[in-house]
Amino acid sequence: MNFINNTLGRKIPDEVNGRAVKPFRGAFADEGGGRIATRKISTVRHKGRINKVVGGWNELFTHLQPHSGMTISFHHHFRNGDYMINEVINRLAALGLKDLVIAPSALFPVHDQLVDLIKSGVISHVEGSMNGQVGVACSKGFMKRTAILRSHGGRARAIQDGDLHIDIAFIVAPTADELGNANGVNGPSACGPLGYALADSQFADQVVVITDNLVPYPCVPWSIMGGNVDYVLKVDKVGDPEKIVSGTTRLTKSPTQLMIAELAAKFVDAAGFVKDGFSFQAGAGGISLAFTVFLGNIMREKKVKASFVHGGSTEILVNLLNENLIDYILDLQAFDLPAVRSLKDNKRHIESPPFSSYLQHAKGCLANMLDVGVLGATEIDIDFNANVNTHSDGMLLHGTGGFSDVAAGSGCTILTAPSFRKRIPIIKERVTTITAPGEVVDVLVTERGICINPRRSDILDRVKNSGLPIIPIRELMDKVHTLTGIPEKPKLGDRPVALIEWRDGTVIDSVWQVLED
Amino acid sequence: MNFINNTLGRKIPDEVNGRAVKPFRGAFADEGGGRIATRKISTVRHKGRINKVVGGWNELFTHLQPHSGMTISFHHHFRNGDYMINEVINRLAALGLKDLVIAPSALFPVHDQLVDLIKSGVISHVEGSMNGQVGVACSKGFMKRTAILRSHGGRARAIQDGDLHIDIAFIVAPTADELGNANGVNGPSACGPLGYALADSQFADQVVVITDNLVPYPCVPWSIMGGNVDYVLKVDKVGDPEKIVSGTTRLTKSPTQLMIAELAAKFVDAAGFVKDGFSFQAGAGGISLAFTVFLGNIMREKKVKASFVHGGSTEILVNLLNENLIDYILDLQAFDLPAVRSLKDNKRHIESPPFSSYLQHAKGCLANMLDVGVLGATEIDIDFNANVNTHSDGMLLHGTGGFSDVAAGSGCTILTAPSFRKRIPIIKERVTTITAPGEVVDVLVTERGICINPRRSDILDRVKNSGLPIIPIRELMDKVHTLTGIPEKPKLGDRPVALIEWRDGTVIDSVWQVLED
Repeated sequence: MNFINNTLGRKIPDEVNGRAVKPFRGAFADEGGGRIATRKISTVRHKGRINKVVGGWNELFTHLQPHSGMTISFHHHFRNGDYMINEVINRLAALGLKDLVIAPSALFPVHDQLVDLIKSGVISHVEGSMNGQVGVACSKGFMKRTAILRSHGGRARAIQDGDLHIDIAFIVAPTADELGNANGVNGPSACGPLGYALADSQFADQVVVITDNLVPYPCVPWSIMGGNVDYVLKVDKVGDPEKIVSGTTRLTKSPTQLMIAELAAKFVDAAGFVKDGFSFQAGAGGISLAFTVFLGNIMREKKVKASFVHGGSTEILVNLLNENLIDYILDLQAFDLPAVRSLKDNKRHIESPPFSSYLQHAKGCLANMLDVGVLGATEIDIDFNANVNTHSDGMLLHGTGGFSDVAAGSGCTILTAPSFRKRIPIIKERVTTITAPGEVVDVLVTERGICINPRRSDILDRVKNSGLPIIPIRELMDKVHTLTGIPEKPKLGDRPVALIEWRDGTVIDSVWQVLED
Repeated sequence: MNFINNTLGRKIPDEVNGRAVKPFRGAFADEGGGRIATRKISTVRHKGRINKVVGGWNELFTHLQPHSGMTISFHHHFRNGDYMINEVINRLAALGLKDLVIAPSALFPVHDQLVDLIKSGVISHVEGSMNGQVGVACSKGFMKRTAILRSHGGRARAIQDGDLHIDIAFIVAPTADELGNANGVNGPSACGPLGYALADSQFADQVVVITDNLVPYPCVPWSIMGGNVDYVLKVDKVGDPEKIVSGTTRLTKSPTQLMIAELAAKFVDAAGFVKDGFSFQAGAGGISLAFTVFLGNIMREKKVKASFVHGGSTEILVNLLNENLIDYILDLQAFDLPAVRSLKDNKRHIESPPFSSYLQHAKGCLANMLDVGVLGATEIDIDFNANVNTHSDGMLLHGTGGFSDVAAGSGCTILTAPSFRKRIPIIKERVTTITAPGEVVDVLVTERGICINPRRSDILDRVKNSGLPIIPIRELMDKVHTLTGIPEKPKLGDRPVALIEWRDGTVIDSVWQVLED
């Protein structure tokens, strides 16, 4: 393995897991070209009804013939309420399989038990997204091969372009029929959209739908199309939708976070974005939820109506929709049960898979139609490079989610964060890991002031007389350093344990092994 | 060009337009394999809003750079009310283009004027479907090359598998936004589903959406996804939805047709199909509409509810849906305005594109989930081979529509037809053209009796004590011949002017040039 520097000066290996690495060359340097992945032609060989329901796990595995080294994929619509990822991988482990490549769209604390399977060699590495203890295990070098982190749009791209070939996709569906049509809006375990599994269903060699609510054909809406599905497995319970509300998705009570959220909303207003037909995405972190509340207040006051808001959807967003302050919610995932119900019942609440929401390798996507994107980050540096994957101690704790996609698409990308967390400043001379380049990050809102990327003189002009606390980013960094001191750099080894892909498939940064004391 | 015989003994050429012909080997002989078509990777190269709306036809053509010999595609949701197919082709003719391959999902009398463009060499030939005078022109040998007729599912398959490569797809959309998202349910020209254009949008090199109702992003539902669209053109009026009701789609008043329809409904009941959760498709021909009315009466009487009916949808079907005699209408096209409105407003009326409805080269489709398919035909022979393309004079007058797909999929395929039309018997020793093999055709219902394919002893058993007029097909043919005489065979030349593809891409029959007197 040799190392090269990409155009951001980050050191990356020239190959990963036997595949050549394409170095990042700029957020929009990618020229497309090449061909999307193809797939084997299937065929139907009889007249009359088709029933893909298998008798149980054993019969399923007899059909699937799983093997060591294969890539299996999962989606994360159940978030921390998922029952199936552990179940499937444990069953594959019991069959004696090794070196599995896991391609989940995200993992949650409920999946922390996978660490043992990483240590025992059942799991080789992760491609897609990881969070929490699995990320820690990666940071400590427990994975045999190099993990690859992709944004939601990047994951769909990798599957579409053939960079991520899935042998078996396991799709957990709150409702499905015997042909394999499936959705997330009906059934006792309804979780909302199923969009993260769409690419998997279209490109994986074998596709399994696992449901606890088998209904007679036709299961509509068919977020997943039966024509792409090989087997349907009925289980007692696929997950606990109550637990999709977890961790990051509660409204903050922290005065600092509320202050940041309000400042961000005021900034968006002062910059002239709040007008009829505008659009935004704010996500479901504590600050983001509060931002949505404050922005809703401004919209109500000004009698302004947004054309759409891009979810993750929450009760807060649903209330704005029902109040007619928003024409449409376009939605990748539900963060609470009111959002699940709204997707089911409200014709103006629309499921939007990563292909339509986030795909760079298409002729346009929703992310570009966002006027404002409000995102969280763990670090930002004086060139506005953003880090959402690692903490300042080097630990890989978060997946990329839609961060890169929204940042690169939205007309104005705003990061919200406290100026320091636990005495660790958020603004750095250089971020530990670059998730998205400063080229696409426009604004940082902290409780100590708002920093605007010098590239965006247009935005700076719009707010210069607003009375808002605008401050150069280096000045704010220095100010915070007087409070916190300059933290020590983490002790990192020279093994890249994970690569961060930019949404076009190039590698924007390496995550280095964290050396234990 | 050499000729070979396929397994039905039909003479077919071994190549067509430079491509090798795969001879038909049986309705379900196809083993799949091979890979689906891939396509060029597109990419988005900037932050912020995307607007694909062009300034007019001239700007559109400057972008498209159309060239002689290219393949252009259209869909037929506007049926006889379409304004755009003639417009586009006339404009391409005005640019001096020649030898265009036209790939419409169907043509209608409004497109008869294309005959002049065929004669003048602007249009080389048709791949997909044709009807009426364009078919006559084909029969008379006016097309330079050999036309290829495909069923709706066969067309989607050919596009998916790469047999039909489309250079430019023109998608006529009652509503669209600036990204290219489009649907058929909103706007002054609402026509219902847009599913026939879905494959085109996903696989064509360039995709144009033409609309008379441009709305701000997001246009939802997005039957056509903006991520697949290159350009959006706004025109004054795309078509006249009043004229989607045309020709074949009116309820019959003919006593003979009503008698056939009632007999077919009684047969379906006697054979035990009318029970809770059953499914059917009957189409929108005169007899089919009447069949639906009669079957509805039986369902009402027996208090039986169907799980779904597959459209084309009509007011009659919509009424059954609203009466709760049907759980769902799954719909490929609207045949009248009440159906258009129902698709828009009723959550149990669902758009289903050919991929989910009819695709053989998938892991199953809707057609297989039909218990009963009721179809019309121009001829049927004593082996139950069916012809829907040519008349007994050899003239190619009809596209295949969904005929082959429903026939091959549905548990019981029933043809309804008068025993003779204008002194031409419908039952022949050998049909003029085989559209679908007797292997998939189960029953013929005429006003003079019901013929059951001897392959289906199971169905014969179910109705043997029903008192229905069951009669062997040869006996019925002979009986009709005593009334009509045996008609002369048409004078056909030895040039195959069109090939009939079976839904798997093999060639089931040739259509021969009709020699003029």
